[in-house]
Amino acid sequence: MNIYRTHKLGDLRAENIGEMVTLSGWVATKRDLGGLTFIDLRDREGVTQIVVPQDATKEMKDIISKIRSEYVIKVSGEVKERFSKNNNMATGDVEVFITSIEILNKSEILPFEISDDANVNENLRLKYRYLDIRRPSMMNNIRKRHDMMMAIRNYMDTNTFVEVDTPILTKSTPEGARDFLVPSRMNEGKFYALPQSPQLFKQLLMIGGIERYYQLAKCFRDEDLRADRQLEFLQLDIEMSFVTMDDVMEYVEGLTKTVFKKVTGKKANYSFEKMPYHEAMSRFGSDKPDVRFGIELKDLTPMMKDCGFKAFSGVANSGGIVNAIVAPGQATNFSRKVLGDLETYVKTYFKAKGLAWVKVTEDGINSPIAKFLSEKEIATLLSTTEAKVGDVILILADKAKVVYGGLGALRLKFGKELGLINEDDFKFLWVVDFPMYEWSEEEERYKAQHHPFTSIKKEDMEMFLAGDQMDKVRTNSYDIVLNGFEIGGGSTRIHNPEVQEKVFQQLGLTEAEVKEKFGFFVEAFKYGAPPHGGLAFGIDRWLMVMLNQASIRDVIPFPVTNKGQCLMTEAPGNVDTAQLKELLLESTFKENK
Amino acid sequence: MNIYRTHKLGDLRAENIGEMVTLSGWVATKRDLGGLTFIDLRDREGVTQIVVPQDATKEMKDIISKIRSEYVIKVSGEVKERFSKNNNMATGDVEVFITSIEILNKSEILPFEISDDANVNENLRLKYRYLDIRRPSMMNNIRKRHDMMMAIRNYMDTNTFVEVDTPILTKSTPEGARDFLVPSRMNEGKFYALPQSPQLFKQLLMIGGIERYYQLAKCFRDEDLRADRQLEFLQLDIEMSFVTMDDVMEYVEGLTKTVFKKVTGKKANYSFEKMPYHEAMSRFGSDKPDVRFGIELKDLTPMMKDCGFKAFSGVANSGGIVNAIVAPGQATNFSRKVLGDLETYVKTYFKAKGLAWVKVTEDGINSPIAKFLSEKEIATLLSTTEAKVGDVILILADKAKVVYGGLGALRLKFGKELGLINEDDFKFLWVVDFPMYEWSEEEERYKAQHHPFTSIKKEDMEMFLAGDQMDKVRTNSYDIVLNGFEIGGGSTRIHNPEVQEKVFQQLGLTEAEVKEKFGFFVEAFKYGAPPHGGLAFGIDRWLMVMLNQASIRDVIPFPVTNKGQCLMTEAPGNVDTAQLKELLLESTFKENK
Repeated sequence: MNIYRTHKLGDLRAENIGEMVTLSGWVATKRDLGGLTFIDLRDREGVTQIVVPQDATKEMKDIISKIRSEYVIKVSGEVKERFSKNNNMATGDVEVFITSIEILNKSEILPFEISDDANVNENLRLKYRYLDIRRPSMMNNIRKRHDMMMAIRNYMDTNTFVEVDTPILTKSTPEGARDFLVPSRMNEGKFYALPQSPQLFKQLLMIGGIERYYQLAKCFRDEDLRADRQLEFLQLDIEMSFVTMDDVMEYVEGLTKTVFKKVTGKKANYSFEKMPYHEAMSRFGSDKPDVRFGIELKDLTPMMKDCGFKAFSGVANSGGIVNAIVAPGQATNFSRKVLGDLETYVKTYFKAKGLAWVKVTEDGINSPIAKFLSEKEIATLLSTTEAKVGDVILILADKAKVVYGGLGALRLKFGKELGLINEDDFKFLWVVDFPMYEWSEEEERYKAQHHPFTSIKKEDMEMFLAGDQMDKVRTNSYDIVLNGFEIGGGSTRIHNPEVQEKVFQQLGLTEAEVKEKFGFFVEAFKYGAPPHGGLAFGIDRWLMVMLNQASIRDVIPFPVTNKGQCLMTEAPGNVDTAQLKELLLESTFKENK
Repeated sequence: MNIYRTHKLGDLRAENIGEMVTLSGWVATKRDLGGLTFIDLRDREGVTQIVVPQDATKEMKDIISKIRSEYVIKVSGEVKERFSKNNNMATGDVEVFITSIEILNKSEILPFEISDDANVNENLRLKYRYLDIRRPSMMNNIRKRHDMMMAIRNYMDTNTFVEVDTPILTKSTPEGARDFLVPSRMNEGKFYALPQSPQLFKQLLMIGGIERYYQLAKCFRDEDLRADRQLEFLQLDIEMSFVTMDDVMEYVEGLTKTVFKKVTGKKANYSFEKMPYHEAMSRFGSDKPDVRFGIELKDLTPMMKDCGFKAFSGVANSGGIVNAIVAPGQATNFSRKVLGDLETYVKTYFKAKGLAWVKVTEDGINSPIAKFLSEKEIATLLSTTEAKVGDVILILADKAKVVYGGLGALRLKFGKELGLINEDDFKFLWVVDFPMYEWSEEEERYKAQHHPFTSIKKEDMEMFLAGDQMDKVRTNSYDIVLNGFEIGGGSTRIHNPEVQEKVFQQLGLTEAEVKEKFGFFVEAFKYGAPPHGGLAFGIDRWLMVMLNQASIRDVIPFPVTNKGQCLMTEAPGNVDTAQLKELLLESTFKENK
């Protein structure tokens, strides 16, 4: 029998009236009222009202007088019907009249109040994370994270996936970001790398015959941090053998629905749409579209080829595109100032050269470019964009990348700022068939968009082997998107060593480079690799979206700041020169004096 | 529908006869027999016999002729009753006569055979780990590891423990071993440390009100490796609030039984004995006794105080102890040579000064020290040790540490070598109440045996506060032992800041040292820390013992050698000087030319 409690603080109900109970927890509030003292006692499961009776002993009253917020106490007493019931509390029908009390531990005054209402500076919260997680919202986030991980594990286990934990102290993986290095003491001059993902290991497990693998793996990237990135992150890693991409997507869709139900309590009762990459780009200007609202991009390229506005016809005739989106009902709201700000925005972030606008009024269109357009062109513009009176049409003409980037961003902006998104709505979507290559302006060559083990679509294989129209070659790849966030992605892999060799060649990798970069991995494929494919989810972001949290840090138990610092432990820290010496290292860092 | 298979290769039974099936897998064997070709096709779930009929097309026969072991193939055909049934195979009642065959991937000749019978060099196995795990025993070990992890998670989830993943990039924890360091690029001159355990985090989670926490955590120690150690290891980490040590042990015992049943299929239908540390030492010479067999240590100290053998009486009268164990029925087998080897053994490994022996014969005792003992002393010796005719009594006289170490080791040696242990037997045991301090000969002072947060037994608190008889002060601590292996251990913690301060003082830590080492952690205890305690299991060793494996490496998917090298990936590896420069580091390592 537990000496600290007979019940949790969310347990007691009317049917417990008359019982003698022992309770322990934190003092949330203490207030005196007409000779009685009331304490709201809190634990993980709830709050129970404790009453110190008027006729309590002096000894008890002395103890009570010392108690302050966040003291840890143990009390015993009788459950009674509450005088004024509180319907907002699960235990609101009862209160406990105590006959004994013990202070288990004291508490100094906290640096901030344990409440979701208090607006606490985030750095202070992170410094005292152990107090921050006493707040109901953070406690909920952490418990939902547990629920999510457990739902994943149950689903994977039920579907005969084998959890395999792969090494943290390992070798560089070819993921493109910077590795964290760990000097080896036993192997002089050598370094381990922390994994950016278990990609190579999971494919080797397929060659090893594991057939279905999963892992909730800690992964690491030494990148400068943005709002939704961390140096270390939790990845759900999945790989399957003897599958096509449809098989993988079927299992993953089932998983996604199960997890969604567990975390949000809601159902996603529909087959997730599978949208080809090119469609996603041309309709939404994004490979991770938020499909909870409309405002799709409309292609004006054909109609602008012969128009009188040179900025449009020039682009349309030289391989660029002219696209439009509609801001519904904003003709009055979008002043010259607002329109100017929107133009500055697409110029600054997407290198657009300008943003044309057309207001649709009762009397026809109002636009600086109206004079360049024929009546027929104006009619086509209105019918193509389906713009109505009171709408504003915004037009970009440029390389596809600029147009999609700029209009895709404006679309999201309007979705949020014009209240077109129902924040309680969740919409999943597959984006599939990503291109194999992306043109790198910097390096002036095609680069693999995903890692170089992604398999190529059968239909595009001839094109690929011919080295022709490389930007049209598509892969068996798929991203899963939720409300405009990419929460996971993967592909089926090349399992045939000869095809892999061809891909390396097309990527411009020499045999020596392949051996140096992927030596042991490429060798493994000589010994009977099965067809296989998989996917990885970013747990932190996925959970953040499901819980509608603004920051990824709010769903991570102990996150770092965007300088990579843990404000609680003060990691990273200094180390002794002696420790470095043992690792055969010297620091060249000079403190600024 | 999956295009690769309608069934797994362990699925087909007599009731499937007549069905058309599609199967994929690896070619285990291929043999020609009277015009028919038989292929044993293998996947994760089993083996199915494939038959290529005599009347197969030339095209099919051509493909068959190319197939070698470990090729990955896909076949379709009809399930038929097997001509000569094989009772050793789950699918032994049937065979599949194929009508189509496709080579999915080829295989070169493997560096070793996929078989548990092949005696393969371990380094070769580790280099080709992805082939090694195709062997049934390794595949079984990896799947049992999954089963174990899942059983743990289900138990913890059912009992409302919350899984919380704590950081890998963190700060040194005070566990005593060397930390792995990770240079921070964003914080110049600073380093993260990889955690030796999540000890501080789990205690902070208790202060945060999580109440029940668990995690399967990767932990790291940069120590020189012995046979059953790895640089990184998987730890089941548990912590609970509002508990005594009995509460923790109750939950953990339930967990242990559940996991044991899942992994071994056997039941541990008994309450685990709780043996105080001092009893374990005096009866078995070990704090992790293998209680599957007898041969306990017997204390001869009182009777030897006045005996004529100075080596015994001297020790017995100066604070040392004289103990004996009996090697049953070995009077004939233990020649002078054998006895000499045993003496060398205890001298070499335990710094014993000598090992006395007494053979019990029909005609009384035979021993070099017989002449020093009176008849009464011999009678007491025989009755105390309960030695019978044909037995050999072995006696050590020295400091307790030497005697327990030496006789404890001899006991285990006899247990194994004399066949006293049933290897199919499993015996769990709690060892409890470890001493707070251990005398450090090197530093000539008492040191905390566990970490300095371990709580002290109420009964011994006075002794502790008085600074008296420090070696007698016991803690609320517990190890769980299976077949002589410590598989887990923990304690309830000090939750009161004033007591913690006293412990630091007694350990000789100054206020400045405490602040430097544990600053933020000690501060956290000021804000209402609940009573709490926990435990950590070493997953790898625990699984190794349950699966009766000789090496911890056989239950770890991708282990390193005892030089800390992964023979497959060749981690650790070299890094560019440029990479180090970015981290403000220079290597002082000079290659031997």
